[in-house]
Amino acid sequence: MARRSNTDERRSQIVAALQAVMARAGYAGATIAAIARHAGLAPGLVHYHFKDKREILVALVDSLADYAHQRYASRAAAAQTAGQKLEAYITAHLAYGPDAQPDAVAAWVMIGEQSAHDPDVREVYQAALAAQMKLLKGLLRQRFAECGRRARRLDSFVAGVTCFIQGAFTLSTTARPLLPTAFAAPTLIAWVERYIEAEEER
Amino acid sequence: MARRSNTDERRSQIVAALQAVMARAGYAGATIAAIARHAGLAPGLVHYHFKDKREILVALVDSLADYAHQRYASRAAAAQTAGQKLEAYITAHLAYGPDAQPDAVAAWVMIGEQSAHDPDVREVYQAALAAQMKLLKGLLRQRFAECGRRARRLDSFVAGVTCFIQGAFTLSTTARPLLPTAFAAPTLIAWVERYIEAEEER
Repeated sequence: MARRSNTDERRSQIVAALQAVMARAGYAGATIAAIARHAGLAPGLVHYHFKDKREILVALVDSLADYAHQRYASRAAAAQTAGQKLEAYITAHLAYGPDAQPDAVAAWVMIGEQSAHDPDVREVYQAALAAQMKLLKGLLRQRFAECGRRARRLDSFVAGVTCFIQGAFTLSTTARPLLPTAFAAPTLIAWVERYIEAEEER
Repeated sequence: MARRSNTDERRSQIVAALQAVMARAGYAGATIAAIARHAGLAPGLVHYHFKDKREILVALVDSLADYAHQRYASRAAAAQTAGQKLEAYITAHLAYGPDAQPDAVAAWVMIGEQSAHDPDVREVYQAALAAQMKLLKGLLRQRFAECGRRARRLDSFVAGVTCFIQGAFTLSTTARPLLPTAFAAPTLIAWVERYIEAEEER
């Protein structure tokens, strides 16, 4: 494997620093100075690698999308059935574990908020979300078939699962004391299975 | 009925202006100057009624919680069964209609994000959310009984419904083009009903 270039390493370091600072202080609070301080770099070096803060944010969206996909892929590798693959998707997003990153979840929530009023951020945020929803749609279609059920209103179902996951991200960041411990993945899996089970046989 | 005082009217006007400006520009972008401009008031008058921007935000959380409760109460008034009351709760949060306020939804999303790193905002945000979850828990418990089902893991179920609703708020604000039209309320109602139906009889 080729050695990662110094530029790649510096850029990753800066992107990771934005994630950590944003998780605590929000996007508005993540100044270039604070990002540089967290990364242990001079502010000038941050400016050398990225035109502005928004460019770091765009790189962070890519890095978070990669991270979510890696978590899914490593769980899905051991899956034999469509049901196990679907469960891998849900637990990759919602389960706690040694590969969980609360900072990543908090940063994702703040990226969502930022994308509401920043078209550049919105574009990459929506593209990342669309890729996840496409993967989920394929997994759900396979699971309907495996259960011998007709897949109706699949787009609404995909959107519903995605709402649950995004809402769990938001509430675990903003209102953790109101949530039972580790409720999210088992609750969503039970919902999805019971919904499919109640569909017409094909 | 007593005539609303001029102070109350001015305060409502300022709170409504924060909601409108935040929905477009985020909390960080909602300056006192922009709020005053939107309300058609002098900035000094905003400062006369509120100590700072955060105090307006706290008043906005109360006003949004009242609005959500009014939407529920007006729908629930006509409900005969526990199922209809539960449906009233879900459609009050998720259905479009003449009483829908997309600005209110966007502002709520941004309040959530702000509450992640601002303890004063978090306190009122979590209190509003806790009151909604308490109401929902009572409605779900009644619906389980009406269906002759045992209500197990009720707190996880309440948290799940709340995640779905919050996620639908976030995605309708940040990623509307990825969502089917008006999918949210019917999808959540079907999920909830199928989940309850699959529980053990009591």
